[in-house]
Amino acid sequence: MKNLQKLLNADKITIARTITAVENSTDTKILEEIFSHTGNAYHIGITGPPGSGKSTLVNAIAKKLLKDDRKIGIIAVDPTSPFSGGALLGDRIRMNDLALHENVFIRSMATRGSLGGLAKKTKDVALVLDAAGMDFILIETVGVGQVELDIAEVCDTTVVALVPESGDSIQAMKTGLLEVADIVIINKSDREGSDILMMELKFAFDLRDKKIEWNYPILKTIATENVGIQELVSEIKSHRKYLIKSRQFEEKRKNNFSKKIHELIEENVRFHLKKNIISQSELNLLLEKTYQRKSNPYKIATEIYQKLLNGGKFDN
Amino acid sequence: MKNLQKLLNADKITIARTITAVENSTDTKILEEIFSHTGNAYHIGITGPPGSGKSTLVNAIAKKLLKDDRKIGIIAVDPTSPFSGGALLGDRIRMNDLALHENVFIRSMATRGSLGGLAKKTKDVALVLDAAGMDFILIETVGVGQVELDIAEVCDTTVVALVPESGDSIQAMKTGLLEVADIVIINKSDREGSDILMMELKFAFDLRDKKIEWNYPILKTIATENVGIQELVSEIKSHRKYLIKSRQFEEKRKNNFSKKIHELIEENVRFHLKKNIISQSELNLLLEKTYQRKSNPYKIATEIYQKLLNGGKFDN
Repeated sequence: MKNLQKLLNADKITIARTITAVENSTDTKILEEIFSHTGNAYHIGITGPPGSGKSTLVNAIAKKLLKDDRKIGIIAVDPTSPFSGGALLGDRIRMNDLALHENVFIRSMATRGSLGGLAKKTKDVALVLDAAGMDFILIETVGVGQVELDIAEVCDTTVVALVPESGDSIQAMKTGLLEVADIVIINKSDREGSDILMMELKFAFDLRDKKIEWNYPILKTIATENVGIQELVSEIKSHRKYLIKSRQFEEKRKNNFSKKIHELIEENVRFHLKKNIISQSELNLLLEKTYQRKSNPYKIATEIYQKLLNGGKFDN
Repeated sequence: MKNLQKLLNADKITIARTITAVENSTDTKILEEIFSHTGNAYHIGITGPPGSGKSTLVNAIAKKLLKDDRKIGIIAVDPTSPFSGGALLGDRIRMNDLALHENVFIRSMATRGSLGGLAKKTKDVALVLDAAGMDFILIETVGVGQVELDIAEVCDTTVVALVPESGDSIQAMKTGLLEVADIVIINKSDREGSDILMMELKFAFDLRDKKIEWNYPILKTIATENVGIQELVSEIKSHRKYLIKSRQFEEKRKNNFSKKIHELIEENVRFHLKKNIISQSELNLLLEKTYQRKSNPYKIATEIYQKLLNGGKFDN
């Protein structure tokens, strides 16, 4: 790519263009080229149900980290986030303030493509921001569903934000949200019910594996008033130290590489099958035979697989 | 397999043993052998949140279908189902009544293996029951999460059971449960709130694609008192006719075969990669190089894929 140096220098227009190019490209040329410049960024996931104040939290955390002269990338996967153009006008103005800061780059994934590929695309965007020298990448997601759990895989620290409202903690447990949490926030903690929520969460975490040395802090915050944000940032830094010391940081990243390699191989296989091994019309004939019970999926799969290994030639 | 004829004759012990053999086997020999005898069974999914009375519904539907002299297979994926040994003693006695009927075979998937493979195993068990001549296979699942949505793929008709309690319908929409519903049941409809739930559901279905000719019936039932079950069975039969007439029945089954073929090919690839192409220790070295940014996942994936196509030999 011709603007690599500009990307490495965190030129905002180049970052935006590179992300767009990566999103619209089916090959992995750019990602492969920038890869050697990645590995510096620390990924923080901020997730939680709608209305838990995630955007305000992201805003407050980013401002705190900027004081240490760090570069911050923000990826908003939540379509209702003010970072994505959603929510109220007042919010958006507040966020614009952050967007204009020279050390902040914000990208919204809200309207990009299908849900199926959203997690993959988010990871690719994070890779571009990493190459561009971001020290921290904050990823805001709504805590429901598989996409969020997939995105949590690339987050070094995942912060789950809840609010003192009936059912939130139970819902978070049901959907597996608490399982990905490294730190839990009770945001809007001046509201009634925050002590009960704290008790419920402590109980839930008590059921977790005792052998793990990380203590899963539960913090009260009021993000709109900047209350508890310093403690949250401290806990994120503690978690980072814990991950590095326990070698989980390295292990997790290597696991992600391994998954990525296998995904890419499977993509290659699917592409090659369709292009060189079996056409849709050939497959349709085999499916018709299967439907009539004159063939079966097991036999067909074995034959196609053998043909794949023979470079497209059938064995007989 | 040596007891094929006994399986085709629906001998209960042979069915049970074949299922166990399929579950414990890593190859697909038995499934391939029985496949030509499948295709007769109609698959009905019964799903819904805990406490919506799914097991009682399954029980009531099965008894109704038995009157037409049909063979019924029941697969309980829900671990709290009395069919799975869960729930109250009273329930279990009632279900045992059904289990002893000569034309009924019940299998619980509750304690079988990891969640990851549960949908796949359920489909394999359904295939055995199909080969054993079951006319209907009723599959009971708890309506939360990906497993249920995967199982819904093999169900010809999916019945979603809700109860008149706050939040159920909203929750069902959020988790994608209503999207897989062909028929919705308001069970325990003598409880307060059933009219409100009916209104909410009608509203939700009004938002669906108008071009589809199926009208998505919403029925009130009280399964414990057999109220509304005849109507439910009639709607299931109407749905079957609709699917066959609109050719969706055939299309869906062919789609499932296509998915199965691709899954099997991917399994073959993964197995072959591990066994013949790249050992875990070789992969670990490459992951270490990637972590140090001396290599990258894209390059590694391409190399492994080329080696796969060359039958294990690297190109250079």
